[in-house]
Amino acid sequence: MAKEITPRDENYSQWYNDIVKKAGLADSSAVRGCMVIKPYGYAIWENMRDQLDKMFKETGHVNAYFPLFVPKSLFEAEEKNAEGFAKECAVVTHYRLKNDPNNPGKLMVDPEAKLEEELIVRPTSEAIIWNTYRDWIQSYRDLPILINQWANVVRWEMRTRPFLRTAEFLWQEGHTAHATKTEAIVEAKMIHDIYAQFAEEYMAMPVIKGAKSENERFAGADDTYTIEALMQDGKALQAGTSHFLGQNFAKAFNVTFSNDKNEYEYVWATSWGVSTRLIGGLIMTHSDDEGLVLPPKLAPIQVVIVPIPKPEDELLSKANEIGNALKAHGIKVKIDTDDTKRPGFKFAEYEMKGVPIRLGLGKRDIENNTIEVARRDTKEKTTISLADVVNHVLKLLDEIQENLFQRAKRYRENHFTAVDDYSEFKVQLETKGGFFFCHWDGTHETEEKIKEETKATIRCIPFDMPSESGVCMYSGKPSERRVVFAKAY
Amino acid sequence: MAKEITPRDENYSQWYNDIVKKAGLADSSAVRGCMVIKPYGYAIWENMRDQLDKMFKETGHVNAYFPLFVPKSLFEAEEKNAEGFAKECAVVTHYRLKNDPNNPGKLMVDPEAKLEEELIVRPTSEAIIWNTYRDWIQSYRDLPILINQWANVVRWEMRTRPFLRTAEFLWQEGHTAHATKTEAIVEAKMIHDIYAQFAEEYMAMPVIKGAKSENERFAGADDTYTIEALMQDGKALQAGTSHFLGQNFAKAFNVTFSNDKNEYEYVWATSWGVSTRLIGGLIMTHSDDEGLVLPPKLAPIQVVIVPIPKPEDELLSKANEIGNALKAHGIKVKIDTDDTKRPGFKFAEYEMKGVPIRLGLGKRDIENNTIEVARRDTKEKTTISLADVVNHVLKLLDEIQENLFQRAKRYRENHFTAVDDYSEFKVQLETKGGFFFCHWDGTHETEEKIKEETKATIRCIPFDMPSESGVCMYSGKPSERRVVFAKAY
Repeated sequence: MAKEITPRDENYSQWYNDIVKKAGLADSSAVRGCMVIKPYGYAIWENMRDQLDKMFKETGHVNAYFPLFVPKSLFEAEEKNAEGFAKECAVVTHYRLKNDPNNPGKLMVDPEAKLEEELIVRPTSEAIIWNTYRDWIQSYRDLPILINQWANVVRWEMRTRPFLRTAEFLWQEGHTAHATKTEAIVEAKMIHDIYAQFAEEYMAMPVIKGAKSENERFAGADDTYTIEALMQDGKALQAGTSHFLGQNFAKAFNVTFSNDKNEYEYVWATSWGVSTRLIGGLIMTHSDDEGLVLPPKLAPIQVVIVPIPKPEDELLSKANEIGNALKAHGIKVKIDTDDTKRPGFKFAEYEMKGVPIRLGLGKRDIENNTIEVARRDTKEKTTISLADVVNHVLKLLDEIQENLFQRAKRYRENHFTAVDDYSEFKVQLETKGGFFFCHWDGTHETEEKIKEETKATIRCIPFDMPSESGVCMYSGKPSERRVVFAKAY
Repeated sequence: MAKEITPRDENYSQWYNDIVKKAGLADSSAVRGCMVIKPYGYAIWENMRDQLDKMFKETGHVNAYFPLFVPKSLFEAEEKNAEGFAKECAVVTHYRLKNDPNNPGKLMVDPEAKLEEELIVRPTSEAIIWNTYRDWIQSYRDLPILINQWANVVRWEMRTRPFLRTAEFLWQEGHTAHATKTEAIVEAKMIHDIYAQFAEEYMAMPVIKGAKSENERFAGADDTYTIEALMQDGKALQAGTSHFLGQNFAKAFNVTFSNDKNEYEYVWATSWGVSTRLIGGLIMTHSDDEGLVLPPKLAPIQVVIVPIPKPEDELLSKANEIGNALKAHGIKVKIDTDDTKRPGFKFAEYEMKGVPIRLGLGKRDIENNTIEVARRDTKEKTTISLADVVNHVLKLLDEIQENLFQRAKRYRENHFTAVDDYSEFKVQLETKGGFFFCHWDGTHETEEKIKEETKATIRCIPFDMPSESGVCMYSGKPSERRVVFAKAY
């Protein structure tokens, strides 16, 4: 199996598609740009969702569910937001099919069942939600509202790739309402921190935190905070965004509250989301030419036990015993009971699927009270005493999680280059890739020119990095600080 | 608050709407027939989902996700299924909006962005899934496929009611593929059993298990198994269905497998689903004129602790201590820290929200080492020793769960009437309501006539009830067994 994967340095894009397919993560579908998320891919998403959901709830958020459809008149109310999404909207215009008189057995759209007002399939839910919040908010006592929703959204993208960019995708979208500007900014930043923490601690994917330039902001936001990760081909991935929406949606939907002095004010808003795109980031951060590599904290199977050469009675009963001991510690274990495939085939398969630890159990192991431990990240194999297996595995899972993070961090550090000269920037962008830390004069025009000429964009104006004045690498004009450029997915 | 609810015997339908609204379960939306599921309602759905998901996984099922849209050519492939849903389909015809030249600031559907083939927003996913299964199934080794999906679906119903019948709703839909007819039937029946177990053990809602008559079957199924519950107004609610689909979808989508003799056969299928409709069933099974009544196993808040008259320091610290002791036993506790409302108001609010147990803690209680326990189901209040609170609450939660089930069961037993005479049937249907156990000659015609004349339908041909021959109450023709009639939601 493994040899069927295209190596990364031969064709990175094909390597990615091969992994998605051969690790059983997703499949194409009959609908243009829409994927089928297969059980193994969905199990990763469930693990991500459960952890994020826990973090949201611990910070006071609750879940709710708003309609899939947005009437056109609501959709267009916040003009910038509408403009940002209008070109990629799936539109429902009819509500009934009927038999096609010219094609027996076929159906046609019933022209008499035309909707009075078209419905947009939500590309994001600010419009439908703020239209609802108007009824929920009267006084400052009704604030804050801290709601999240797990949902599907549709953006009719022209070029799609599984997980990274699909016409329909799954995500969570938080939509909060606040009495003050400060409180809304604090909320947007707290979520930004949660996203960064999730990316680094669970996905083992280092991220740069920062604000988007005005050009790259979410349509309708006053400020967008982003986490940006670096993929193994030197391209950036925007992995999650949290938006301070100001009073834009409150004004568009006339959502006001009476403050404690009985004066009416517009409500302040945030929204924030991460999506199944994170699975694409996970794949491209850790995987190798043998297949998927998964951080233990998100792996659907953390440990697989393979009886060698076959799951015979004695081996299987020992494997079950070990499996149960591991499960008692909350470890997700699979015991391979398939007797139709050879061990070598199975090993390749579990490598392909990125299972962090493989335990191989042979007859001689039982005689010697040993077991073979193979780790996916480094491919190292060791033989340990059976008595140590639980402690060893627990420790090793932590070690693998940490090793993946450190490895990805080293890669990023090696591909984070400060450049002052635009020619050098262009050369290094093509040869080395990665993040570039450059001075920029702060204008749209320069940003646009650089994008036109190099395809690189400003990924973010980073937080947590020293501010340093200089001159813009493109225009030579004064610059207050370096920003992060990269080509991006 | 409580007095704002319309009493059941005054206007049952308004009583239901009042509870949905005032308990904070759902709200109407700007989209015709679509509701907003509010946080408290969604928390009930999360509890249902988590329990069902556990039961599905324990029986070998895995989750996946298939596209929201079904191309029209796939939708119409299984003709009966297509015919069953064609009249209530939301149809996407365009993929872009543009600025309306006649209305500055407004958008219009871009006529140039018409889809070559219309997309149906899934009313159910058999078509898109079986079109995918064709690629996944070659040999008997690929079977069974045991997949479930949690998703939203859209059925453009003309008359909608929150939870019971909405244009968009949330559900799970299982879609399994099998090598043999027997295995598929066993699967459909096992899920049917899981649904019944969930309804009775978790929702405390007694159900009758049986098969649908041919008229009432799912479009495209060879057999539909249903669980039917009885609401307090004497009407039945179809609460969950599991379908044996035969080879209908395999034939429509040409899904074959080679068996162990290397011969090609069509694959056997099941599908099964329950939806947010269950929340409607939950409301109408247990609630009363003071508001929602929730079974402890699905209540978002199982115990609320109210310091009386106010959450002052000493009371609050004691309340937290009790709360933590309860939480340590896995009980979902809310401590009321609101100091702007009076106890009486709060009591009515928690009654409205159906919180199973309310603990009232006053200063004298602390002096006496006591606490007041109020149960929602019977409204009984007792004062117990603080030292007993954990054991008492644990026992009481079980007791309330059981009491709700027994109460609902008694109601159903009192409204399950065997009738042999059609005139009497008509009278009792209008005066007493409930399930009627009657002889039927097994023909469509009789079934249709009874429906036309009385609005009662055959809810199911029950399992687990004695078979007894007789004569059809309508036609006087021979009948092999009694079936269950009722008016239904």
